[in-house]
Amino acid sequence: MQLRDLGEFGLIDRIERAARRVGAPRSVRIGIGDDAAVLRARLREDVVVSTDAMVEGVHFRWRTESPRTVGRRALVAALSDLAAMGARPLGFLCALAAPPQLPLRTLDGLLAGLLREAQTQATPLVGGNLSGARETSITLTAVGAVARGRALRRSGARPGDRICVTGALGAAALERARAERGLGRVRRVASPRLAAGRALARLPQVGACIDVSDGLEADLAHLLERGDLRAELEPAAVPRPPRFAAACARLGLDPDRLALAGGEDYELLFTVRAAGPSAAALTRRLAVPVAEIGRVRRGRPRGGAGRGWRHFGPGRVAGF
Amino acid sequence: MQLRDLGEFGLIDRIERAARRVGAPRSVRIGIGDDAAVLRARLREDVVVSTDAMVEGVHFRWRTESPRTVGRRALVAALSDLAAMGARPLGFLCALAAPPQLPLRTLDGLLAGLLREAQTQATPLVGGNLSGARETSITLTAVGAVARGRALRRSGARPGDRICVTGALGAAALERARAERGLGRVRRVASPRLAAGRALARLPQVGACIDVSDGLEADLAHLLERGDLRAELEPAAVPRPPRFAAACARLGLDPDRLALAGGEDYELLFTVRAAGPSAAALTRRLAVPVAEIGRVRRGRPRGGAGRGWRHFGPGRVAGF
Repeated sequence: MQLRDLGEFGLIDRIERAARRVGAPRSVRIGIGDDAAVLRARLREDVVVSTDAMVEGVHFRWRTESPRTVGRRALVAALSDLAAMGARPLGFLCALAAPPQLPLRTLDGLLAGLLREAQTQATPLVGGNLSGARETSITLTAVGAVARGRALRRSGARPGDRICVTGALGAAALERARAERGLGRVRRVASPRLAAGRALARLPQVGACIDVSDGLEADLAHLLERGDLRAELEPAAVPRPPRFAAACARLGLDPDRLALAGGEDYELLFTVRAAGPSAAALTRRLAVPVAEIGRVRRGRPRGGAGRGWRHFGPGRVAGF
Repeated sequence: MQLRDLGEFGLIDRIERAARRVGAPRSVRIGIGDDAAVLRARLREDVVVSTDAMVEGVHFRWRTESPRTVGRRALVAALSDLAAMGARPLGFLCALAAPPQLPLRTLDGLLAGLLREAQTQATPLVGGNLSGARETSITLTAVGAVARGRALRRSGARPGDRICVTGALGAAALERARAERGLGRVRRVASPRLAAGRALARLPQVGACIDVSDGLEADLAHLLERGDLRAELEPAAVPRPPRFAAACARLGLDPDRLALAGGEDYELLFTVRAAGPSAAALTRRLAVPVAEIGRVRRGRPRGGAGRGWRHFGPGRVAGF
């Protein structure tokens, strides 16, 4: 059975039924089924919104990834942007474009993955849009809230700030490399660091914050590009997953490249004032491992890492 | 010059510069350039969000429409959903997917149309996403605010309610029909009824509200489908643009079909309690012509108009 057999109202019914099983928190005043969704933040909160597209053949391939994984990963990428702002999610919208001949099984897998992650993150699907298209794409808009004026920003780093990162980097790139070599499909999906982001937003010593979606070097460049700043990075200090070097060696991959440029780990990369809490204190505060990997220095970056490494065409997420 | 020559960071710079010329109201706390945008509603307002996609070959064709018109129309469609909820816009996000060989001239036209409409509607572009794709698509998410608990809904019609519509219907369908016959490109763009929607949200006698995007009959069906309700419509009372019948006759088109099923006029279709204000009083209150075109009755609809008339594949906007 294909999407065309269902028709678009059939598909909307299917999505609505699936979304309803997840349940809706009190923040959802009007969900799926109206012209727009209505969400309620708390008093004195700002609204935080971000949109992310995943396009077939660009951000995913059905050959290397199951529809469930594609669905989960799309929501993780969208919510990770809220995490990087220190926001809590209120809900999300899903614009799905797909060819009429898309197998219904694929669509159901995509929805199941999306809604499973929605449940895990307690973030309801509150509306969206359907359209025919030549290739499948899924564009998610995450809506969140943060205490007024407390959103974390990309700007805000200062010379002398310590550069920190949560968790470990390189696992997503390693799994993609395995899948591209035909050694299994991508299954592992990172988790957006929502709780850690909210904890960071409460710390006045935090300078700037971004999520690691493009890769550490590229995202560090985004973090520092507005000021006359550069990073003094200790590559050996960049945390990696367990048994990472051995797994890379088996595939003939450079573990440093994967950890520093891999992308899609959705960890938080942030700076802390020199006199701010130590990595150990941050680890306790954020309830997730935090490693210190370098320092912010005055001056333009040496070398060309980060900016312009990926031209229009195949690539990953490019938010603005 | 093509999109690929610009690269995606070049494109983001171009969008950011163009958006900055439009200016940002105080509601924008953080705009383009961070992981997410931060918007501030007033105290005791709910957040209203809606997403709409326009896909090349489905919702527009470069042959029949200028890039500027496509851009303007995309934002009108997105903001019309806020109007139908009685919300005021705070800002919007734009996810653009396009093939690397897209002429830069086309992209610039699209952006110019989008940002011209943004300026007209005092609604800033606050962020977005770029991606390569085989066909061009533009997915906009409108973010607005409405006084707590005052959002207009699709549900809420009662038997005996009078059915009303703003402005006139059929002009958009007539112009599309002309363009499809090679008689000029689509140029006319409707205006979202934002002020009228906000005025309606303040009237307690309003039952249900929707914007006319799919066509009067289809949208009326959406408005009544949740209850055991049907519309008793007076087709002759449906307001049409000046000289509409003559223009339809010249093209051999049925003016009733165009006015009742045309779509994309983005007028507001709503119901008012029997004892509520008259069409003349509503015209004054909303500062836009309001016509009464029928009554809400108990019972299932006769005939099959409205639902399921358009299957997955070529069609217009399908929000949920």
